Amino acid sequence: MTERIREFLRTRRDEGPCVVVDLDVVRDNYQAFAHSLPDTRVFYAVKANPAPEILNLLAELGSCFDCASTQEIEMALATGAGPERISFGNTIKKERDIARAYELGVRLFAVDCEAEVEKIARVAPRARVFCRILCDGAGADWPLSRKFGCAPEMAPRVLEHAHTLGLVAYGVSFHVGSQQGNVDAWDSALASASGIFRELAERGIQLSMVNMGGGFPAKYLKEMPGVPSYGDAIFRALTRHFGNRLPETIIEPGRGMVGNAGVIEAEVVLISKKSDDDEMRWVYLDIGKFNGLAETMDEAIRYPIRTERDHDRKEACVLAGPTCDSVDVLYEKEPYELPVSLSIGDKVLIEACGAYTTTYSSVAFNGFPPLTSYVI
Amino acid sequence: MTERIREFLRTRRDEGPCVVVDLDVVRDNYQAFAHSLPDTRVFYAVKANPAPEILNLLAELGSCFDCASTQEIEMALATGAGPERISFGNTIKKERDIARAYELGVRLFAVDCEAEVEKIARVAPRARVFCRILCDGAGADWPLSRKFGCAPEMAPRVLEHAHTLGLVAYGVSFHVGSQQGNVDAWDSALASASGIFRELAERGIQLSMVNMGGGFPAKYLKEMPGVPSYGDAIFRALTRHFGNRLPETIIEPGRGMVGNAGVIEAEVVLISKKSDDDEMRWVYLDIGKFNGLAETMDEAIRYPIRTERDHDRKEACVLAGPTCDSVDVLYEKEPYELPVSLSIGDKVLIEACGAYTTTYSSVAFNGFPPLTSYVI
Repeated sequence: MTERIREFLRTRRDEGPCVVVDLDVVRDNYQAFAHSLPDTRVFYAVKANPAPEILNLLAELGSCFDCASTQEIEMALATGAGPERISFGNTIKKERDIARAYELGVRLFAVDCEAEVEKIARVAPRARVFCRILCDGAGADWPLSRKFGCAPEMAPRVLEHAHTLGLVAYGVSFHVGSQQGNVDAWDSALASASGIFRELAERGIQLSMVNMGGGFPAKYLKEMPGVPSYGDAIFRALTRHFGNRLPETIIEPGRGMVGNAGVIEAEVVLISKKSDDDEMRWVYLDIGKFNGLAETMDEAIRYPIRTERDHDRKEACVLAGPTCDSVDVLYEKEPYELPVSLSIGDKVLIEACGAYTTTYSSVAFNGFPPLTSYVI
Repeated sequence: MTERIREFLRTRRDEGPCVVVDLDVVRDNYQAFAHSLPDTRVFYAVKANPAPEILNLLAELGSCFDCASTQEIEMALATGAGPERISFGNTIKKERDIARAYELGVRLFAVDCEAEVEKIARVAPRARVFCRILCDGAGADWPLSRKFGCAPEMAPRVLEHAHTLGLVAYGVSFHVGSQQGNVDAWDSALASASGIFRELAERGIQLSMVNMGGGFPAKYLKEMPGVPSYGDAIFRALTRHFGNRLPETIIEPGRGMVGNAGVIEAEVVLISKKSDDDEMRWVYLDIGKFNGLAETMDEAIRYPIRTERDHDRKEACVLAGPTCDSVDVLYEKEPYELPVSLSIGDKVLIEACGAYTTTYSSVAFNGFPPLTSYVI
């Protein structure tokens, strides 16, 4: 929570829940990454928050962009950044979308299988491709499924296929899991990556780049290491596995870049109990899973919540959203401690909401509008 | 899948995934409800699909509307239906939204606690309120949490409070769980409701109405009983618990009204394997949890999927969506059987997608647009 956000909310005229993102925090985050990993290029994961003001600031600071779709590529280009600063990082792309990206000048593409390589070879000749490998995600609060990446043993064949088809077999990528609390999580993935570099070298193909993905945390309720600790651990792991022949490296922070820059202001709509002998309050907010807080799915992300009554005694409550959908409950398995004096109509501040809130909102579920967003 | 939808898709010019809803099916569904429960008023649950064409048709057929927000109330009024045909069925309402609904002429409101009664008494004098009670939801594919409703033992106090504050204590509501496969699920809830009627009568307050909610299923992969079976079972339960003093009754079908009226057309974007010794294919579609298929959450709703190669041998695969989010996987715990000859670029038809698809779509997650919707 910054003074600028506090001031903005004090004078805000509109109604309903909103998120406010402070660009000064984004700038600080960018500089922390640039400083802690000085030889690594930052590709901001646009999907975390594609607000034009954020993209413009990052473009100005020298950031590159990791894009998930042609729409995100167009947003990144709209900042004035050239296509050489863009990676089409989704391993699942329609061939016509690859063609469109190529037409826009993009030359760097993610793959994780031979079929994707073939699409790229057909419509993006001589482009650079990197192969994403699976990674176990241990230590992450939002661990990744097996959806993206192939087994490390399969990657050499995928990259060799790219080489054979006239593409540049450029490197390897992985993702250690979102909101990764273990600074050493990059180590085993970098070991796999260096093995793939060696195997390709034996086949006469020189890889150039390791894309070390995202996973850098925002601070929610749990304490998390700072960016410098990640930088140190990653640099140690890089030298351990690549010796003095360090590859070109990339990181793709999304949550780590914007998560702590945003605050949601919401309102208490109702407080009730389910029966006379029930001790547990239900607190209903005007924000829930469908208009901003999708990442409370399975109670994965636990946001810090501030009220104006935090000096009072707190008791556990179930916290839920405003829609007529029974899954629109934020915290129930592990109830949330809120002041006993909390009242209907009170404002609450939900911190660290800069990432994965605005674009995750539903169009109009239950008729409720998507989350309003301000970037200041 | 109807001939009209097939014909529409054959001549469609646009690109990308879409849902097509056939109004003839909606009309048939409305008539099945009206016919199977002739003395029960139908309040269509607008949240299931608020497309204006659907609301207009239902208004014309005589349907009433169950609305979750003031926005949905305005959509229902836009059909020309009067406010006497609207229920503000969300138990979680801002006081200013209750005031707005009252100003628009709405006089029927849901409550499940005294605090909500007090809001209504302040801004909607003499309105009718019904108290929602908890219900166990056994037998439902999308069972409801404890989010809505109070214990049946608490309801008399809530309704008496309404009466004392000058409101009309109008009745009781419950919801047996969405996609409810057990036609007898209404029985125990109606027993509770009749107990509440008796208790209020002893206090000199005559309740009038039982709102029997939704829960009527759409046909997905599993066989489900037809509307007439629900009608018979509900009528038997009503007479069992209310004898020959049957209350006014309401049902609120959403999924049961529009679920089977819509088909999604999607495209296979990628098919791959994760390693050389992996037998399981991953099939990636251009539709997923964030642009229409949110109800695959926890694999709750299992949609029928048709391809042009269904005559071929089928094998299990993991089915996933197109975004860079690892939770955007549709079926993995219980993989989905699809033809071995399925290929990248093939179209697939996902049936029974008329409910809870369009408004559940995210605004622009990963830059992908929300689901395109056609009503024919």
